[in-house]
Amino acid sequence: MNIDCPLPSEVEETIHLGHGGGGEPSQRLLHEHIYPHFNNAWLERPHDSAILPAQASALAFTTDSYVISPLFFPGGNIGELSVYGTVNDLAMSGARPLYLTCSLILEEGLPLTTLDRIVASMAQAALAAGVQIVTGDTKVVERGKGDGLYINTAGVGALVSQQRIAPESVSSGDVILLSGDVGRHGMAVMAKREGLEFDSALESDCAPLHEPVLDLLANGISVHCLRDLTRGGLATALLEIARAGGLQMHIQEQAIPISDPVRGACELLGIDPLYVANEGRFVALVPEAQAADALAVLQSSAVSAGARVIGHVRAGGASGLILQNALGCERILGFLPGEQLPRIC
Amino acid sequence: MNIDCPLPSEVEETIHLGHGGGGEPSQRLLHEHIYPHFNNAWLERPHDSAILPAQASALAFTTDSYVISPLFFPGGNIGELSVYGTVNDLAMSGARPLYLTCSLILEEGLPLTTLDRIVASMAQAALAAGVQIVTGDTKVVERGKGDGLYINTAGVGALVSQQRIAPESVSSGDVILLSGDVGRHGMAVMAKREGLEFDSALESDCAPLHEPVLDLLANGISVHCLRDLTRGGLATALLEIARAGGLQMHIQEQAIPISDPVRGACELLGIDPLYVANEGRFVALVPEAQAADALAVLQSSAVSAGARVIGHVRAGGASGLILQNALGCERILGFLPGEQLPRIC
Repeated sequence: MNIDCPLPSEVEETIHLGHGGGGEPSQRLLHEHIYPHFNNAWLERPHDSAILPAQASALAFTTDSYVISPLFFPGGNIGELSVYGTVNDLAMSGARPLYLTCSLILEEGLPLTTLDRIVASMAQAALAAGVQIVTGDTKVVERGKGDGLYINTAGVGALVSQQRIAPESVSSGDVILLSGDVGRHGMAVMAKREGLEFDSALESDCAPLHEPVLDLLANGISVHCLRDLTRGGLATALLEIARAGGLQMHIQEQAIPISDPVRGACELLGIDPLYVANEGRFVALVPEAQAADALAVLQSSAVSAGARVIGHVRAGGASGLILQNALGCERILGFLPGEQLPRIC
Repeated sequence: MNIDCPLPSEVEETIHLGHGGGGEPSQRLLHEHIYPHFNNAWLERPHDSAILPAQASALAFTTDSYVISPLFFPGGNIGELSVYGTVNDLAMSGARPLYLTCSLILEEGLPLTTLDRIVASMAQAALAAGVQIVTGDTKVVERGKGDGLYINTAGVGALVSQQRIAPESVSSGDVILLSGDVGRHGMAVMAKREGLEFDSALESDCAPLHEPVLDLLANGISVHCLRDLTRGGLATALLEIARAGGLQMHIQEQAIPISDPVRGACELLGIDPLYVANEGRFVALVPEAQAADALAVLQSSAVSAGARVIGHVRAGGASGLILQNALGCERILGFLPGEQLPRIC
């Protein structure tokens, strides 16, 4: 360290419009700040598309744009979120995640060191999830037309089972399994954004979920439906399945694990934890006869070690979601009328 | 028309943060403004991923984010651009475009009528290009954190030939074919943005390019490399191929078609048309022996009816791009040092 020179010798390098023009600065951005992180054979020979080997199975194809604010939050950042989010969407279709794209919308003025940290985090997440980031795109917008950066990832996975994992496959009697405690991602982001301090650490649950899903299928569980509990949380995910499949679902409030810091933050902010976004939790709907086996499989993966049975699908009645509290009182849960936690993913 | 009531009875409906929350407004946005346009079997049963049938061939996989400003420009809008741009990236790999995703980042305050027009245009473009929009995502950011809307599309296509269409396949003697006049897209957008008026209509060339490419392959042309001439235009596209393949390319200035309105606008604004973005033009590098056949195939498609031979790849020498003018003088073309036309795609 040179203590004679307390001031930085150069102004911090930031993104400018030229980085999005396709010319020399674009080339340098790619070759110095993007490709080195995603080091793989596809990017060594960049072309308009990546060429993927033929797949014998059907494919799952998905996309998500990530606009989370702030970019860094307790337990993660937008980079790993953009990888795990898309990996998880593929997993929820019963697919082994294989290939991802990475498309960046950068705001003029974003420090290159911030970009580097985020891209490095994407690369690390891809490694953890066993996927390759094979192609991408980078655009730059003027200051005040973005918010640091937005990331889109699209993903392709190979279906590992013939069974259709979808709301239509759910039938009455099916058991609803939840992979762990809910509400951590949304409340960690909210706490950071609002500058709230809590006694206990409040960290996002951001994590890849393909492992427990592939384990369920490998163990012969007839998985009827899966859903990760992102925007809108547990309640919205179950409602979507109920509505799409014409099903009535019953869940027990006291069976749903919620950590003390999440419960505390939710009470403070007046937010229902059942509607708070998660990025490392999912529900699995399985036949009653296989519920115990499925639970054991889930509990054997670290990411779903806290799995529980939280309810079941009941025959007859209007489609919807019913919550029973500890006293046995029932309450119908609906979609949220508005937005309680904007930009949590 | 009710002439007794000149004022609209309701405030124009616009996007609000609730449309991005996953709750009731999100559901309505999808079911009233998105799915009806993209009407297909995948979206009737929306799930986390779309399930695509197994493909016998290798796949091309690509993505692009579109941040063009303004959203509507002479000859097109961001919606059709986002479909054709990704369709064209797939075509440039020698693939038949099949499936697209559509991910929207909407700015709070965007009129729903604007969204409707753009999504309808995407649907029409998908129909024209023979692709299905099978899955998507919608996010909303606060006013001042976007610019109306940004669109990401990712695409999957099936390779139609075993030959590797890439810079490494180009060899000395190869002929460079250009599919038509250059510079229209970038100059149409610039003219609109700057409020310039020209005598002649200046319209974007935005169009799908899969047809002439598939025709080349169906006619047995050994296509060595293809590249659409988007950001950075003709010069940047050829330079990228030259650099990636270690090639020296020579092109003739007078062989490159440029319309009078484009030439006029470029002179007025001091812009080199060879670096201006196109959205319906490409180069094809083919063996000299097949150049005449390839040219005839290209000229038989409406979108590439103005195809010409503009140069060739020369053995030896440093890799790069050399432009010869009408007087026989040669000039080395490099990557642009900065950005001349921000946000043209």
